[in-house]
Amino acid sequence: MHDKVSGDERILRHGPPMPSRRSDVAPFIAMDVLRDARNLERQGRHILHLEVGQPGAPTPAGVRAAVAEALTGGSIGYTEALGTTPLRERIARHYLETYGVRVAPDRIVVTTGSSAAFVLAFLACFEAGDRIALAAPGYPAYRNILSGLGLETVWLETTEASRWAPTAAMLDDASAVAPLQGMLVASPANPSGTMLEPDAMEALLAGARDRGMWFISDEIYHGLTYGGACDTALQHDDDAIVINSFSKYYCMTGWRIGWMVVPERLVRPVERLAQNIYISPPALSQVAAIAAFDCVDELERNKAVYARNREILAEALPRLGFDRILPMDGAFYAYVDVSRFTNDSLDFAERMLHEAGVATTPGLDFDPDRGSRFLRFSFAGATADIEAAVDRLGDWLKR
Amino acid sequence: MHDKVSGDERILRHGPPMPSRRSDVAPFIAMDVLRDARNLERQGRHILHLEVGQPGAPTPAGVRAAVAEALTGGSIGYTEALGTTPLRERIARHYLETYGVRVAPDRIVVTTGSSAAFVLAFLACFEAGDRIALAAPGYPAYRNILSGLGLETVWLETTEASRWAPTAAMLDDASAVAPLQGMLVASPANPSGTMLEPDAMEALLAGARDRGMWFISDEIYHGLTYGGACDTALQHDDDAIVINSFSKYYCMTGWRIGWMVVPERLVRPVERLAQNIYISPPALSQVAAIAAFDCVDELERNKAVYARNREILAEALPRLGFDRILPMDGAFYAYVDVSRFTNDSLDFAERMLHEAGVATTPGLDFDPDRGSRFLRFSFAGATADIEAAVDRLGDWLKR
Repeated sequence: MHDKVSGDERILRHGPPMPSRRSDVAPFIAMDVLRDARNLERQGRHILHLEVGQPGAPTPAGVRAAVAEALTGGSIGYTEALGTTPLRERIARHYLETYGVRVAPDRIVVTTGSSAAFVLAFLACFEAGDRIALAAPGYPAYRNILSGLGLETVWLETTEASRWAPTAAMLDDASAVAPLQGMLVASPANPSGTMLEPDAMEALLAGARDRGMWFISDEIYHGLTYGGACDTALQHDDDAIVINSFSKYYCMTGWRIGWMVVPERLVRPVERLAQNIYISPPALSQVAAIAAFDCVDELERNKAVYARNREILAEALPRLGFDRILPMDGAFYAYVDVSRFTNDSLDFAERMLHEAGVATTPGLDFDPDRGSRFLRFSFAGATADIEAAVDRLGDWLKR
Repeated sequence: MHDKVSGDERILRHGPPMPSRRSDVAPFIAMDVLRDARNLERQGRHILHLEVGQPGAPTPAGVRAAVAEALTGGSIGYTEALGTTPLRERIARHYLETYGVRVAPDRIVVTTGSSAAFVLAFLACFEAGDRIALAAPGYPAYRNILSGLGLETVWLETTEASRWAPTAAMLDDASAVAPLQGMLVASPANPSGTMLEPDAMEALLAGARDRGMWFISDEIYHGLTYGGACDTALQHDDDAIVINSFSKYYCMTGWRIGWMVVPERLVRPVERLAQNIYISPPALSQVAAIAAFDCVDELERNKAVYARNREILAEALPRLGFDRILPMDGAFYAYVDVSRFTNDSLDFAERMLHEAGVATTPGLDFDPDRGSRFLRFSFAGATADIEAAVDRLGDWLKR
């Protein structure tokens, strides 16, 4: 999977040029699984999709109506690179209404999904060679974008002792080796589902502040919690960089629209980068995003489905032999220890896909070391699919 | 405009972290002008938009209809990272029908605008520190993305002698200083409007091939030529990387959808990068893109408007004193020497915007050295706007 390119070969070679060494990032395995699953479907197989972290529910009706209306109107051209003023103002209002935090609309950067927000934040904050702390397990694109941009990932290996959340002590240890220039945390986290307690977030922010580090808070799973609500990092530190998206709670993955809140001194650097690297976020998706804030009733019904799916998996997975599941405080993932069955989760997931027709994501996407013993089940789909997946897995594991 | 960040200050400083040095890319001035123009409009001013390179015509009706239909259907989720199979197949068919070139759909990469194609191509082909040749004047995002990704731009300064096109001799000279790892050409070019003759393209391709360099051909203005049609680089060299987009000929700037044709050995590196950096291109925009190929009648009518606008400017600009215009073989720009009026095109464009209500782009966007004597007029808008702009400029210059 990790298609190695020999650097030496490239330098010594004559003839056609070859791919760069830095293109040798790990694939996003979940997307590889999605592609394989789609290929099986084209061959007539029925596949249950528990691999990709996207809501099974469609884009809310109110969003579709707003976009249908916009389709009959203006020219659908470039917008300002930082996004349209109405959307930036609407997002600022969201911070006031949801968290009681005042953020000037000028500090809101609309991005082409949270993906673009990561690229912009990393380029705006870090020099090539800088060291950034990430929790393991974690979202694979963090480290792969970092590596593509010449940045070094420093792992904070979380364990059961802190409910799989990073701690200030881990940050101390990592900083002791060599200075860190930034850290990125997600709460609720993918794939672990764990949430940072307010005290734990305070301690991490203090650790970053004391060291003059950038603190980036990925809040893409906000709104999807099954106990209490989440704090935004901005409640604790106005200098935090917050990244969010309309993909998860708002059920708009395919629209590629997200946002970032940055300190004032980053606005212009981010704007220059965005002008050049993205020109502007998709125009219709910005219309869609404004409408999404008014679709809370539909979105809460979708969330109730995830909550039901979560209960089903919490009951069924241990019964199937997957008896060690990380916290499912938030997001829509069950990250499961499968070491009872395999020490090669990539092979295990592939067989599960081909033999049982259940697509899941091997833990290697999230944790390069320990991931070979883990599997991620997304429970963002329809309840009937989750139930069917449980049945199929029961049959498959019995073989 | 070039908001300098002192590197030394950043390293020695205590306290909050500061923006990175590499975020200190030049702004895309055309986008700054757009923002200023929109601010004036919010204050009630009427502005004629000749600054941004986007069609005044709206997205074709057939595209809107296809998207309206898609809005009532599926979930609008992530697609495969390289784009949907139907779109990749449709683009491959376009190469056969338009250029008589067979390209396997597997080699087509659907991208979030040509912007994403540049990022993916640069990361997949080049290591940090590599030297890439670009023609000056040229599209500013080339050099700004290169610099953001740690790559060095080597200018090929074009002149009237080659009708502002880069030549193999320029490539020889640049290579004599130090090896080049790639070159990027655009034909028709922005802002010069110049087209490469087939012989000239052959010579450049041979020069790149002989040196084991990557050859990237930006073909975003294909379809918009006012004399003969353009060759794709793929007619001359199957190993060229071709970048294109639905933004210009297809009038779909705001949809952020484009594509790239890459040699087989780049497909998987580009796929891995795309999975991590973009996840997937916008889903609805891919539906839109397929429909765009069937809207040729409407698009040819739009092109007839540009052709008319081009004639108006070719007649009027010299009369106004702008008597040196670069070739307008293709695209929709008049790149004009304004040294009779100013040696500070940034200030000149700003006064023109505020005093005459005509937005244009200063040449500094396109040529860091000589651009202070040039201005770019986009003639992609409505003919009435072009005529009104000519009138306003006549009055303004008389003051």
